[in-house]
Amino acid sequence: MKTLKNVRPMGAAPTDLHIAEGRFVATAPDGAETVDCGGRILIPGLVEAHTHLDKSLLGMPWYRNEVGPRLIDKITNEREVKVSLGLDPQVQSERQAILSVSHGTTHIRSHVDVDTHHGLRGVEGVLETREKLRDLVEIEIVAFPQSSMMARPGTVEMMDESLSLGADVVGGIDPCGIDRDPKGQLDAVFRLAEKHGKPIDIHLHERDALGGFSMEEIIARTRAHGMQGKVTISHAFCLGMNDRAYVADLQAQLAENRIHIITTAPASAPVPAVKELKAAGILTGSGSDGIRDTWGPYGNADMLERAMFVGQRNNLRRDDEVELALDICTFGGAAIMELDGYGLAPGDRADCVLVEGETLAEAVAARAPRKLVLKGGEITARDGRCIREAP
Amino acid sequence: MKTLKNVRPMGAAPTDLHIAEGRFVATAPDGAETVDCGGRILIPGLVEAHTHLDKSLLGMPWYRNEVGPRLIDKITNEREVKVSLGLDPQVQSERQAILSVSHGTTHIRSHVDVDTHHGLRGVEGVLETREKLRDLVEIEIVAFPQSSMMARPGTVEMMDESLSLGADVVGGIDPCGIDRDPKGQLDAVFRLAEKHGKPIDIHLHERDALGGFSMEEIIARTRAHGMQGKVTISHAFCLGMNDRAYVADLQAQLAENRIHIITTAPASAPVPAVKELKAAGILTGSGSDGIRDTWGPYGNADMLERAMFVGQRNNLRRDDEVELALDICTFGGAAIMELDGYGLAPGDRADCVLVEGETLAEAVAARAPRKLVLKGGEITARDGRCIREAP
Repeated sequence: MKTLKNVRPMGAAPTDLHIAEGRFVATAPDGAETVDCGGRILIPGLVEAHTHLDKSLLGMPWYRNEVGPRLIDKITNEREVKVSLGLDPQVQSERQAILSVSHGTTHIRSHVDVDTHHGLRGVEGVLETREKLRDLVEIEIVAFPQSSMMARPGTVEMMDESLSLGADVVGGIDPCGIDRDPKGQLDAVFRLAEKHGKPIDIHLHERDALGGFSMEEIIARTRAHGMQGKVTISHAFCLGMNDRAYVADLQAQLAENRIHIITTAPASAPVPAVKELKAAGILTGSGSDGIRDTWGPYGNADMLERAMFVGQRNNLRRDDEVELALDICTFGGAAIMELDGYGLAPGDRADCVLVEGETLAEAVAARAPRKLVLKGGEITARDGRCIREAP
Repeated sequence: MKTLKNVRPMGAAPTDLHIAEGRFVATAPDGAETVDCGGRILIPGLVEAHTHLDKSLLGMPWYRNEVGPRLIDKITNEREVKVSLGLDPQVQSERQAILSVSHGTTHIRSHVDVDTHHGLRGVEGVLETREKLRDLVEIEIVAFPQSSMMARPGTVEMMDESLSLGADVVGGIDPCGIDRDPKGQLDAVFRLAEKHGKPIDIHLHERDALGGFSMEEIIARTRAHGMQGKVTISHAFCLGMNDRAYVADLQAQLAENRIHIITTAPASAPVPAVKELKAAGILTGSGSDGIRDTWGPYGNADMLERAMFVGQRNNLRRDDEVELALDICTFGGAAIMELDGYGLAPGDRADCVLVEGETLAEAVAARAPRKLVLKGGEITARDGRCIREAP
C-alpha cells in the first residue's frame, strides 16, 4: 500500500494518488507508505508494442556491422551469425527487458523468431525470461516467421507449436516480398489464429502498391474470419506512399475492420501518418523495433525517446501533437494489446512512471532518466536504473 | 601541458597523446600533467555547424506551442513572442553554448536573426556571448535574415551593419518561398559577401523544382563572383527530391563550384543523401538547428546524437556508414568553417572529446555523457557537465 504524494497525473495539478493491492484506489488505505513525488508528472507505464527481445546484442562485445543493404541480406546474415556469436535468447531478452524497465516500460510485445534453423529456441528463451521477470514487466510473445513461412517448409508447424507452448500472437512478414506467396502465408496465418484463438500482428515492410495489395488481402481475411479488432499491421510503410487517395481508402477499410497499426516511425522509410490514423479512428501503437542487433547499432529501449521519434518523423511540434506521440507510446499500445486496467484511474493497475518536465511535451523532448517506475504498485526502477541487475 | 594517457584516437589502439601550448605535440613536454583516459576513444571537438543560439528558450518556463503549420506561421509567431517572452539573445545564447560544450562541442556556427523588428539585438547579444565564452567554445555568427530581406526594406542595411560589427558569414533564406524575389535577395547576399570579404551560408527549405531553381541561381552567382569554396547551402531539401537525375546534375555543379551542404537530417522533410554527397566530393556538415524554441520542443545540442540522427535519416547501419555520420559532425563541419588546426595530429589544436564505446559506431549509438572535453588543451567539461554554470 502506497500513497504517491504531490504527483501530477498526466501533467494535471498536483494531487495524491493511492495504491492498494496493486491498483489505484480512491481513498488512502490504512498504513500506506508515502512516496514523495516532488510534483513530478505521472503517466501510466510505457508500452513497448513492437520489439525483438530475442535478437539484441546488448551486453555482448561490439558487433561490427558489414551487412549488405537489402532486407534479405539482414535476415540471412542474422540467421547465420546467431550461431557464431552464441546468442542466447533467454539472456538477451532478459538484458533488453531490464533495460526497458529502467526507462519506465511496463508492457512489451515482442516478436520472437521462429524458423527451421533455430527451431523454438527463441520462443523458449523469451518464455523463460517472461516468467523470470513477471513482477517487473509483462511480456507478450508473437511467434514471428522472420525467415519466411511458406518458403521454408516446416515453419508453419513450428509456429503452431510455439502457440501451443505459450506464444500469444500469430506473426507474419511481407507475404509478397519475403515469402513470394501472399495467399499461402496469409491463409496459414489466419488458420493458426483461428485454431489457437489468438490475435495477429504482421510485419509489412512492402511499399507502395505492393504493400497496398498485401494490406487488402489482410483486410479481406480479417473480414472473412470475423477477426475485427484482433489484427495488427506493424510498420505498414505502404501507408506512407504518395498516392494519398489510395491511402485514405485503405485507412477507411482498416478503421471499418478495426485493424490496428504499430509504427516505429523510422526516419529513413515511408511511414503511416499518425495524425491521419487518429482522425480515421485507427488504434496506433509504437515500439523500438530491434535494439543493437545485427540489423543496426541504434536503439536504447526508451519509449519516451520513441515518442520523440514519432513526433519528429510526423513533424509534431505543437504541445497537443507531442501529447499524441506520447499517447501512442502508452494508451495506444495498451489498447492494441487489450491490457486490462491500464491507466491512472481508481481501479486501474498501478503500473506507472514518474517523468521529468513541466509538461508532457517537455517530458518527451527532454527524455530525462525516470525517477521512479512502478509495476503493480511496487517499485521496479529508480533514477533510471532497474532494481534487478541484468545478467 | 598535459599527457592524455591510455587514449584511443578515433578508436585506434591505446596510446598517449601530448599537449603543449594548446596543441598536440609529438613528444611529452617536461612537467606535463597526466590525465588518465581509461582507454576511451578520443575524437576532435564536435562541430555544431548549424544552429540558432539567439532563439532557444532553454532555462525559461515551458513554452506551450500552438503555432500554425506553415513556415511563415513560425516566423511571424516568433518575431512577435520574442518580445512578449522577454527573450534576451545574450542570455539564451550563453545557455545554449554552455549546453553544447557539456556535450563536447568546441565550434559553433550560429545563424542569428537580423530583422527590422529587433534590429541588431540578436547579433549584439551573441557577440557578447562569444567574447564571454571565448575560452570554452568558438562561435561563428551568420547574419541571418529570418524574416526575409527584400520584403522588409531596411534588412539588407542591417545585415551590412552586422557584418561590420563582427558577424562572420552572410546569411540568406528561401529567396523564392520567403522573399518572393530570388534575384533581389541573391544579388544582395553576394554583394554583401563581396563588400565584406565574407563567406555565405543560405537556408534553402524550398523543395523539388523550386529549390532546384534557387540552387541553380546560387551556383551561377558563386561562379560569377569566383566564390568557389566560400558558399554553403543549409538544409537543401530539394536534393531529397524524387527526380534523382536532376539531383545528380545539381550535385555535380555543387561539387564543381565547391559549394558545401549542411544538413540537420530532419526526419520529416526530404534531405540530401549524405553518401551521395560524399561520392560527389561535396563537403558536408551538420547541426542541431533550433533547440527548444518557438518552432518546436526538440533538441539538446548534442552533436553525437545528431550524428545518430544523420545515420538514422540516411539509413546508415554498417560501422563504416555510422563513422561517416560522425565525420560529418566533426571533420565535415570543420572543413566548411575552414577551422585552422582541426584534428588530433601533432600541431593540431587540442580541441577534443572523450567518448564512450568500444568503437566509433558504438559511441554514436550510445551517446553516453562525455567524460572529458578539452578546448585548447584545457578542460571545459567533465562527466557531461560544463565547468561554467549557465546563467
